Amino acid sequence: MACNGANQPLLSGLATSTTQKTNGDAPKRRRLRRIRSAPLAEFCPTDINGDAALPRSESIFGRLHPSFKKVALFLTVYVGLGTICFYIIRNQIKGDKTNGILDAVYFCVVTMTTVGYGDLVPNSNLAKLLACAFVFTGMALIGLVLTKAADYLVEKQETLLVKAFHMHKKVGELEILKEIENNRVKYKFYTALILLVLLILSGTVFLYKVENLDLVDAFYCVCSTITTLGYGDKSFSTKGGRIFAVFWILAGTICLAQFFLYIAELNTENRQKALAKWVLTRRVTNVDLEAADLDDDGVVGAAEFVLFKLKEMGKICQEDISLIMEEFEVLDVDQSGTLSVSDIILAQSVETKRS
Amino acid sequence: MACNGANQPLLSGLATSTTQKTNGDAPKRRRLRRIRSAPLAEFCPTDINGDAALPRSESIFGRLHPSFKKVALFLTVYVGLGTICFYIIRNQIKGDKTNGILDAVYFCVVTMTTVGYGDLVPNSNLAKLLACAFVFTGMALIGLVLTKAADYLVEKQETLLVKAFHMHKKVGELEILKEIENNRVKYKFYTALILLVLLILSGTVFLYKVENLDLVDAFYCVCSTITTLGYGDKSFSTKGGRIFAVFWILAGTICLAQFFLYIAELNTENRQKALAKWVLTRRVTNVDLEAADLDDDGVVGAAEFVLFKLKEMGKICQEDISLIMEEFEVLDVDQSGTLSVSDIILAQSVETKRS
Repeated sequence: MACNGANQPLLSGLATSTTQKTNGDAPKRRRLRRIRSAPLAEFCPTDINGDAALPRSESIFGRLHPSFKKVALFLTVYVGLGTICFYIIRNQIKGDKTNGILDAVYFCVVTMTTVGYGDLVPNSNLAKLLACAFVFTGMALIGLVLTKAADYLVEKQETLLVKAFHMHKKVGELEILKEIENNRVKYKFYTALILLVLLILSGTVFLYKVENLDLVDAFYCVCSTITTLGYGDKSFSTKGGRIFAVFWILAGTICLAQFFLYIAELNTENRQKALAKWVLTRRVTNVDLEAADLDDDGVVGAAEFVLFKLKEMGKICQEDISLIMEEFEVLDVDQSGTLSVSDIILAQSVETKRS
Repeated sequence: MACNGANQPLLSGLATSTTQKTNGDAPKRRRLRRIRSAPLAEFCPTDINGDAALPRSESIFGRLHPSFKKVALFLTVYVGLGTICFYIIRNQIKGDKTNGILDAVYFCVVTMTTVGYGDLVPNSNLAKLLACAFVFTGMALIGLVLTKAADYLVEKQETLLVKAFHMHKKVGELEILKEIENNRVKYKFYTALILLVLLILSGTVFLYKVENLDLVDAFYCVCSTITTLGYGDKSFSTKGGRIFAVFWILAGTICLAQFFLYIAELNTENRQKALAKWVLTRRVTNVDLEAADLDDDGVVGAAEFVLFKLKEMGKICQEDISLIMEEFEVLDVDQSGTLSVSDIILAQSVETKRS
């Protein structure tokens, strides 16, 4: 959701629409941007004082989305530690056993995804408390980290999907990217849906072929697993089945959870779009104009109008504006009501004096 | 998250800070708001043309949050329908049975929350497919609707918590509301935590007293239930136990899920605050000024600065701004670069001609 274009000139899209509509009525209305050739979006300003320690906003946004590699490493370490613990106390776990280490991994995955078939259950106080600790941390790990990684994986695959959709039409890479950008959540939803169907089919076929369940039972076991219901009357009891289960359960439960998240996101987006549309087409009244008039000069400038409408859409609040305005007041050293190059120079000299 | 104050004058907080700092340097800097006495925030403009069919933004925001009553009704109908279905096919469900209807309700709740102990399992193809359908829709219902209702309930209770926190200090209702507003997510988190601890304690005591489990087993069963793990080696097998379980499982699973959501929200909020702080304290350069200069008049006004910083914080994107600017261009009938009362009158006459 974060759009990382803070250094692009504001309203770059507007410049074109203005030039199209320019007529003789307003001769001194808008001067052309002075340095058209300077590619502001790519321009990376170096700090005047040379202290480059300040992070760019890109790096902060980057930190919000942990890389897939990090998540995979995290997950491996977590399952690894769990496996070692449950392998050590394997005699305190009762149920259908196949192979020591395999059962420990399988028990880990069944527990951390909260499927909990019950075909293997802890049989001592230590094992029970360990399972409790493991399920809480596992839930947190899956909830907090994996949805982001899953989101990233789905995003990677959606390009393939969109390309497949438009195979009959000749469209360029750029058009596809634009199409994805406009319908991001919708394509993520479809990608997750396709993945989910593939996982359900593969699980059903596997249980039918390898675990020798009949088709309804296989489908029932698949549903009971990916929803993390895990009644446990049907589960993976063979060696091969448990190897498959370790990967398939992780993928299936996360994919279904992600799928539900996308439905919720789609729902929210549609409501927000409807609200935005209503706010935009609503007739502007004199009272609105007065409310939007930030600097009390009797007219509403472009930026004032945008702020007013953003507030009406609920995208920003008064608090956001007030915080930034405090900063503006500080920067506006000459108290002219506007920021100019002279303000910056003044502000820097004040700062130097302070430090 | 939606802050519903679109009709408040923008930067109402600023007015005070300006008057405090006014000095002789800029005599014609900012005129006083013309009609100070008009309470804009409460003023509800009636449409000039009398067509009051347009909804106010309040109603749209209201629709985003379904009322608690609606959710409770939804849930009751859903569990009711499930109970009837599973009661009719009660002979196709095998396991530890107590009372026909009670078992059907208990099976419903254990299934829709994905706890899935396995003490009662479907035993025919029809029952299995019904359980599959029921768990998917139940997950969606719990995921999509109950988090909102749970959020609402937690919000109701947090006032009590904050009052209890500040019992020794004499603080007014208004201070408490302000304190809550500033630390909303933190207080929701604490409220959910307290509720969760109460639910865990009550569940453990109940299982210990009524179901005659030892303390570790009772705690283990509680953890296995609220995380929806549900191994099923320990579950509610008495009549009284199942009556308690129906309410306790619903409350426990939802409370834990909500608790994890608040942790994630707290995490996001802290990161956003850090980002906002960095964006605000970052030194403004000449390149930034040029990028922020919306109308190319060589200086950056207050509203332009706010928009630039909001964009840098990732709260809004270029697309948001462009959409609103298109509307601005349309409204700015006299092409003066600003909106005034004359623009509105002109726009309305154009609209009348069009229709």
